[in-house]
Amino acid sequence: MQNTLLVVGSVAYDCIETPLDSADFILGGSSSYAALAASFFCPVKVVGVVGNDFKESDIQRLKARGIDISGLKFDESRPTFFWRGKYHENFNSRDTLDVRLNAFEGYSPELKPDAKKSKFVLLGNISPEIQTAALDEVEQPEFVILDTMDLWINTANSQLKDIVKRSDLLILNDSEAKLLSENKNLICAGDILRKMGAKSVIIKTGEYGAMLFHESGFFTIPAYPVRTLHDPTGAGDSFAGALAGYIAGAGKTDFETIKKGMLVGAATASLTVESFSCYKLEETGLEEINRRRQYIETITKI
Amino acid sequence: MQNTLLVVGSVAYDCIETPLDSADFILGGSSSYAALAASFFCPVKVVGVVGNDFKESDIQRLKARGIDISGLKFDESRPTFFWRGKYHENFNSRDTLDVRLNAFEGYSPELKPDAKKSKFVLLGNISPEIQTAALDEVEQPEFVILDTMDLWINTANSQLKDIVKRSDLLILNDSEAKLLSENKNLICAGDILRKMGAKSVIIKTGEYGAMLFHESGFFTIPAYPVRTLHDPTGAGDSFAGALAGYIAGAGKTDFETIKKGMLVGAATASLTVESFSCYKLEETGLEEINRRRQYIETITKI
Repeated sequence: MQNTLLVVGSVAYDCIETPLDSADFILGGSSSYAALAASFFCPVKVVGVVGNDFKESDIQRLKARGIDISGLKFDESRPTFFWRGKYHENFNSRDTLDVRLNAFEGYSPELKPDAKKSKFVLLGNISPEIQTAALDEVEQPEFVILDTMDLWINTANSQLKDIVKRSDLLILNDSEAKLLSENKNLICAGDILRKMGAKSVIIKTGEYGAMLFHESGFFTIPAYPVRTLHDPTGAGDSFAGALAGYIAGAGKTDFETIKKGMLVGAATASLTVESFSCYKLEETGLEEINRRRQYIETITKI
Repeated sequence: MQNTLLVVGSVAYDCIETPLDSADFILGGSSSYAALAASFFCPVKVVGVVGNDFKESDIQRLKARGIDISGLKFDESRPTFFWRGKYHENFNSRDTLDVRLNAFEGYSPELKPDAKKSKFVLLGNISPEIQTAALDEVEQPEFVILDTMDLWINTANSQLKDIVKRSDLLILNDSEAKLLSENKNLICAGDILRKMGAKSVIIKTGEYGAMLFHESGFFTIPAYPVRTLHDPTGAGDSFAGALAGYIAGAGKTDFETIKKGMLVGAATASLTVESFSCYKLEETGLEEINRRRQYIETITKI
């Protein structure tokens, strides 16, 4: 029987403005991106909460990818977590114009009996408090992948460091790695984060790729070369989701499997950024993911 | 008989301050770095000018690496080109505190008869005017590698674009590539620079590595992971020098040879940044270059 991946994180509605386009109330949140990405590689269960404005069409989108949403709480009293953001010229930076926790305010995850038996857990980007509460409910996790962001490094540092110690694979981007490790050399930052207790560490470097720090060695991949960036939102979440899904699907957690998972993650993330939400990813699916992952292998081969 | 690489560029004395250390009047300039780096792979001839303060010990350093300095003019009336710079915290930016052209003021390269017969030419970072004058003297160049910097993109744009059209391989860093192509997507920038007439293009991305845009395809390498950055000065020059030396030494200019040259370039540049000037590179030599180039292959292999 194939392993299921348990995905913890946010489910959100996003209003996004980019230099090219804008979209209102599209499905977002770390958990949505990660679960959709992972669903191409293994069965996925989502834990989280949505509000009274959550659309039937989005429920159908998740179900169409076979995602088990029985762990998704429907809070009839409040709307879904909401984020409004605007990307600046060249997508190099973004402003958060509005953020409303809504249904996530005071939410604490409760796992169904079958979810508690999960072996593979992705703690997507959300507060370390919710990540910890969810992980505490998993009886015997075998491989815990932890994602985070600068907000939690700055506002929940000690709680974050506690859960870093429980992670088998910590994923963060370059500026977050420097911030959390308090070291400005990325290579040293990766070493330090492993010393802080993460068994292995992936530092994402955006358009440049990603680096893996593992007890078996160091590894790098380039990003898939994207010529038509549409919306970078969710790139990191879908990288983590596809990687976690690949690992769970393979049922192996060794260095070689993580390397292959990074390729899959980079291929999947490149599809995410070529449309709003995961529209292009859902449309093109596994065939295009595999084409891109092979292409990434090609462009690194001597 | 092995091909000789003709290296055009600056020879300078640098005074450098980094967050860790400082050094005064050390051998620098694009040509010095490039020639020393290339000398591990093929015979090298240097074209340029030095002044009346040029030290006998630096002549011996170049000669010790077998570099032919008969094309180096000794201007007894003025000192050597001088640069004083200071790197800020984490080496992310630097200030030029003083720069004096000295012997390079009004200098125009004159090539000896044997230099005019060169097939492989590295036009290291110097004004497009000097690059053009030198290239004009080469009778039948077969492979021209062109390096440049933001200064020339901003101050000698049209002359630079003319010589870009005559280059077989244009090398620049990410911000320079964006500036020259007027496109902020690096992948698109590479495409545009080829359309501007460079047969192939390498965009260097510092600690992340480098990308090659070639008619046979796209290729990427990561940087060698450096944990002890000492002085980034000359990293780009020695990358270009080692790459050019590798190509000339191999006597082949195809996609596969350029790929291998990039590995050699990255390995050599990583040694340059671990000391002031090229001290560490000269000390450790080809054995360490080869060890690092193999390591870079290892960290990209699935």
